[in-house]
Amino acid sequence: MIKVNRQILLAKRPESVPDESTFKMVEAQIPVPDENQVLVRTHYLSVDPYMRGRMKNIKSYAKPFQIGEPLTGDSIGEVILSKNPDFSVGEMVIGTFDWADYSLRDGSELRKINLDEAPITTHLHVTGMTGLTAYFGLLDIGKPRPGETVVVSGAAGAVGMVVGQIAKIKGCRVVGIAGSDEKLKYLKEELGFDDVLNYKKVHDIYQELERICPKGIDVYYDNVGGEITDATISLLNFYGRVPLCGQISMLNSENIENGPRLFTHIIRRSILLKGFIYSDYKDRFEEGRKALAQWIKEGKIKYKENIVEGLENAPDAFLGLFRGDNLGKQLVKIGE
Amino acid sequence: MIKVNRQILLAKRPESVPDESTFKMVEAQIPVPDENQVLVRTHYLSVDPYMRGRMKNIKSYAKPFQIGEPLTGDSIGEVILSKNPDFSVGEMVIGTFDWADYSLRDGSELRKINLDEAPITTHLHVTGMTGLTAYFGLLDIGKPRPGETVVVSGAAGAVGMVVGQIAKIKGCRVVGIAGSDEKLKYLKEELGFDDVLNYKKVHDIYQELERICPKGIDVYYDNVGGEITDATISLLNFYGRVPLCGQISMLNSENIENGPRLFTHIIRRSILLKGFIYSDYKDRFEEGRKALAQWIKEGKIKYKENIVEGLENAPDAFLGLFRGDNLGKQLVKIGE
Repeated sequence: MIKVNRQILLAKRPESVPDESTFKMVEAQIPVPDENQVLVRTHYLSVDPYMRGRMKNIKSYAKPFQIGEPLTGDSIGEVILSKNPDFSVGEMVIGTFDWADYSLRDGSELRKINLDEAPITTHLHVTGMTGLTAYFGLLDIGKPRPGETVVVSGAAGAVGMVVGQIAKIKGCRVVGIAGSDEKLKYLKEELGFDDVLNYKKVHDIYQELERICPKGIDVYYDNVGGEITDATISLLNFYGRVPLCGQISMLNSENIENGPRLFTHIIRRSILLKGFIYSDYKDRFEEGRKALAQWIKEGKIKYKENIVEGLENAPDAFLGLFRGDNLGKQLVKIGE
Repeated sequence: MIKVNRQILLAKRPESVPDESTFKMVEAQIPVPDENQVLVRTHYLSVDPYMRGRMKNIKSYAKPFQIGEPLTGDSIGEVILSKNPDFSVGEMVIGTFDWADYSLRDGSELRKINLDEAPITTHLHVTGMTGLTAYFGLLDIGKPRPGETVVVSGAAGAVGMVVGQIAKIKGCRVVGIAGSDEKLKYLKEELGFDDVLNYKKVHDIYQELERICPKGIDVYYDNVGGEITDATISLLNFYGRVPLCGQISMLNSENIENGPRLFTHIIRRSILLKGFIYSDYKDRFEEGRKALAQWIKEGKIKYKENIVEGLENAPDAFLGLFRGDNLGKQLVKIGE
């Protein structure tokens, strides 16, 4: 057990792509729990693209990070001190902790992890936020039916990989879009995607998508936005469904970019688009976690983790998301 | 009974705004019914903005008009000759007839009008296509709840006026957007809209909408697209709903215009957008017609008709839609 609490703060709001100057590591005292509070030692931090959005000073589902305060994110940790009768020392918990060695949280902000349900780190992806994001977006909004064509962008990301595998479980033809041949090879050979498209290597995304989706597209699970999304929406069939999950192509932009107005096509084809965040489904998390854990057990959902060691490497792991470094879920291991 | 069948043909596909050269009137022989067919004398033609879309050679829910063939549209007529046992001479029927004095149709393309249900011409608007478009788009997609703010664009059009009145019936605060003070006065004073906005007279639609919708916007019923829609979507509350009904601002454009990319906001607020056409709800038409007819009887839905006399004036009535001439439903009276 270390004696200080290292914390990573937001040093300044990035103007476009974040870099090292976005972050600052400081050493603070280890806090002491008050009534109902719990001190947690961080074991794993999850590193997620949506955090870029919270670096902007914009009202959204999650409130903006404040300059000079610790970043926070989905994390797993161990209870070290507890003044909450519901939590005992040594228990493993999940919550939104500081990017730090230790976090002080109210008991109501924690959930105990069922270690039998699924491998512990999967609570930060397949059976956690990204998996639930895939599960509810695809099944509740996308409503895929057997034989339909499902296209997923950001397919090699933590959400995209689960989306594609659930769509396969549901009997769909699945096409994944990503930006590296290595990632796409993994999707096709290991995860069973039917076809893949490297958007960086094609001259015309629309034409290439049209070629590999000869029956059109029924569900487009959107993680990226921008030109990939323009092309995909333009190829949607009648009654197509679009779970709008993320717009990573917009995350580093402060201004609203322009793109083609697609509503005429959306009307002509009676298309549904729905923005969402996984917490819209908080009443159904239990259902989602159980289904996802079961699919992991049955080998129907595979996953890949990219684990970096050391809190001090968390900023670079985050920056790697935007360099397109990672295949699979980016985690940072901190505690023992 | 006249001796020739005057027909209005599509003379050429308009490049932008249609004009007189888009149409051509010819005289043809009055056709004779074959087995199962019915000859109908047109009494009323409905003139609708969506017909502009059919003048383009683009695959959509309705197939494009062909050059040199009669335009068609929602119409009411009287059975003149019948070789279909289900239809008798003298009965009033509704269907998609030619812009002509007479049309020959298969019995399966006709529906008898219940003259007791509602005033006959309302079958071409409040209890017909435009009313059903308002009814299902607002209630099935918009799902307005009492106390919510509903904004409707194209509010003085045949669809928009019904949308606003149904939203009032459902206990909402209703704001209508249109382009003439005369129209807006009617919406506010006669139809009970809570507030109105003349988009042609405001400097900044967003700011003005923000001012008159202090609680934000919960449902945006979109008939117009373009900048009005950009502003309205940007003001939608969490879980806002957008029935996408029409994009009249795009109708005269052959190219896809650019506009701001709004998906980031749509995701942040968990917003739903759904394109639709009234025929998506054909299994529920009876329900919609009954509700609308009842509201007319109860005086809860009022309407205004703009009736032009003579088939020869139908083209100009259509062009008037794009000049913004009409307050309420544009009809052409042809038969006796």
